[in-house]
Amino acid sequence: MISRKCYEDFHAGFEFDFRIAGLTANEIMEFAASYDPQRFHLDENEASETHFGGLVASGFQTQLLCFGAFCREVLLDSWAIGAPGIDSLKWLRPWYPGEPLDGNVTLISRRLSSKRNDRGYLSFQLRGNVDGAPLVAMDWVVMILTRNGAAKQLE
Amino acid sequence: MISRKCYEDFHAGFEFDFRIAGLTANEIMEFAASYDPQRFHLDENEASETHFGGLVASGFQTQLLCFGAFCREVLLDSWAIGAPGIDSLKWLRPWYPGEPLDGNVTLISRRLSSKRNDRGYLSFQLRGNVDGAPLVAMDWVVMILTRNGAAKQLE
Repeated sequence: MISRKCYEDFHAGFEFDFRIAGLTANEIMEFAASYDPQRFHLDENEASETHFGGLVASGFQTQLLCFGAFCREVLLDSWAIGAPGIDSLKWLRPWYPGEPLDGNVTLISRRLSSKRNDRGYLSFQLRGNVDGAPLVAMDWVVMILTRNGAAKQLE
Repeated sequence: MISRKCYEDFHAGFEFDFRIAGLTANEIMEFAASYDPQRFHLDENEASETHFGGLVASGFQTQLLCFGAFCREVLLDSWAIGAPGIDSLKWLRPWYPGEPLDGNVTLISRRLSSKRNDRGYLSFQLRGNVDGAPLVAMDWVVMILTRNGAAKQLE
């Protein structure tokens, strides 16, 4: 368990690249029905009458799929213990069915907690593009145990 | 269709209250398996060994359930046309199974677009509490057509 990455194992400049295959119209509509049932996410005909000109993914679906890729490949192999929030999330253009998304997460900076000596904070920037055009940008902070913090939890 | 609310129908101070019944452990774990498979969202035993002391909902699930309540009751009856992003999202304490969440969304301010004469922007603040203790806070902006913009779309 201690082999999972701790605060000390992450350094500014760390990068993680990922790719999400284009979504199908059904995947977009199913997510929308559960979580964001606005007409341009839920119904192809109604969407075609809006300024989007067709069905587009909920921005929350974009956010979750990008975070999920990072979570599975990076966070699950670490002593991350949650996040205090999202500092900024920008949806820069609509995401249409069939468009693959190229993503990158970069560790911008890190700092130890001033209050608790068992943890630190990692500041990440996530960027997603479609065909080179910026589609989503998210900046957020992840809390993570230090090596000592992780060792204490295993005692 | 034009009977849906336009920019002009929303005024600063508008409020929407909602309540979300406590989540079951299964609802928390199912969401986590799809979108945020960190151990404290996914597995009761592993969660009990973390600083949370038990299973807690993914902050993204909190965000989506709160947004969804607002979306269904307010946005769907409007000419909202999406959002440029989230200005700030804060998770202020963990959300454990069985805790009902009391939510409020307040319209803080509105402004017309300086570039497009068919739309404006509504700045909302969402707050969610459990037993009076702040649990989630989200500030974001919704784009919405003006009455003229909506009329043009119906032509």
